[in-house]
Amino acid sequence: MPQGVPTSVPDDGLTTRQRRNAPLLVVHTGEMKGKSTAAFGLALRAWNQGFPIGVFQFVKSAKWKVGEEAAFRALDQVHTDTGQGAPVEWHKMGEGWSWTRKQGTEEDHAGAAREGWAEIARRLRSEAHGFYVLDEFTYPLHWGWVDVDEVVSALRERPGHQHVVITGRNAPAALVEAADLVVEMTKVKHPMDAGRKGQRGIEW
Amino acid sequence: MPQGVPTSVPDDGLTTRQRRNAPLLVVHTGEMKGKSTAAFGLALRAWNQGFPIGVFQFVKSAKWKVGEEAAFRALDQVHTDTGQGAPVEWHKMGEGWSWTRKQGTEEDHAGAAREGWAEIARRLRSEAHGFYVLDEFTYPLHWGWVDVDEVVSALRERPGHQHVVITGRNAPAALVEAADLVVEMTKVKHPMDAGRKGQRGIEW
Repeated sequence: MPQGVPTSVPDDGLTTRQRRNAPLLVVHTGEMKGKSTAAFGLALRAWNQGFPIGVFQFVKSAKWKVGEEAAFRALDQVHTDTGQGAPVEWHKMGEGWSWTRKQGTEEDHAGAAREGWAEIARRLRSEAHGFYVLDEFTYPLHWGWVDVDEVVSALRERPGHQHVVITGRNAPAALVEAADLVVEMTKVKHPMDAGRKGQRGIEW
Repeated sequence: MPQGVPTSVPDDGLTTRQRRNAPLLVVHTGEMKGKSTAAFGLALRAWNQGFPIGVFQFVKSAKWKVGEEAAFRALDQVHTDTGQGAPVEWHKMGEGWSWTRKQGTEEDHAGAAREGWAEIARRLRSEAHGFYVLDEFTYPLHWGWVDVDEVVSALRERPGHQHVVITGRNAPAALVEAADLVVEMTKVKHPMDAGRKGQRGIEW
C-alpha cells in the first residue's frame, strides 16, 4: 500500500499537487503473466474515476482477452445506462482495426500496427480518452514495425491529462526511459512447468 | 501469449483435459505494484466465464481499492439484471467483515484476520464461489496471525473447481510451494522516485 512519502522531491518548479496529478506513462513488461491483466485492473480504477477509456490491442488474434473485453463492454453499457463510471472503447488489430472496418484479409501486420499507432497518435493529440491501454504494443516496437522515437515523442508531447499503459515483453529502452512507472512481471512458477495447458477463466 | 505447449508432461495418471481443468492456486507477490490489479484483471475473465466471485480484502483501510470495488459491484448488478457474467461478493476486513456487520471499533486486527480466514475456509468447503481473490492475505500469514500450514492444507483439500488468487508481499515459502502459478512483480521504475505521490485513477 502506498505510504504517500516520496523518496525525493525534484527541483522541477512544480507544486506537489501538479506533480501528483501529472498523467502517467506506465509500462508492464517481463516474461510472465499479469502484464495485461494488471493493465485492465488499473483500467477499472480509471473507469470508476470517470476517465474515458480506450483499449488498443496489438495482437493478431485477441481470443485470449475476451473476458476483459466482455466485462468492459458491460461497464461501457453501465455508463450509457446510468452515467456511472466512464465510456469504454475497445479496438483490436486482429480483424482489422474497428474504425476502418476492414475484415479478415489483413495480412500486412506491420502495416496494421502502424495504422493503429497513427490513430492513437491522433487521439492523443485531440485528447480523445483519459486512460489508454496499448496492449502488447511493445512487440511492433521491438520488431521495428513502429518507430520507437516517434512513439516516445508523441507520448512526451501529449496534451492534457491522459494516462497511457503499455504492455508486452521486450519493452524498448527508450520507452522504459520515458516511462514514469515500469513493472516487470517475473516468473516464479508456472503451471505449464507441471504439464498443464491454459484454461478458461484464467487464460481467457 | 500462451503457446499451448507444456514444457513437460507429468506421470500423474491424469489426462491432459483433467490437468488442464484443475483449479489453480495463484500467488501474486513481490515489492511492486500490480499484484492486486492483476488479480482483479483475472477476476474479469472469471466473471465472463460465469464463475461466482468472492473478494476478501485483508486490509485495515480499503480506500485504495475503491475503483475495483465499484466496477465489480456494477458487474454484479449487470449479472442480476441480465444474467451475463457471474455474481460478485466483496468483503473487507477494515470495517469489520461484511457478514458479521460489526462496525468501526474493531481493533483486534489479528482476530479479524483469523475470523476472515475461518469464513473463507467454510466457503471453500461448501464450494461457495468459483473464483476467490484473497487480497493482501500474505500479510496476516507473514505476521503469524493466521497459520500458514492450516491455510495450505485447506487450499490443497478444497473440493470441486475453485480458483484462488492470493496477493501481497512476503508470500510464505509453504504457500509458494503449494501454488500452481506464482508471479513476482518487480520494480523497474516508480513515480515516487521522482517525488510524486499517488493519484486517483492510478492508485485507487
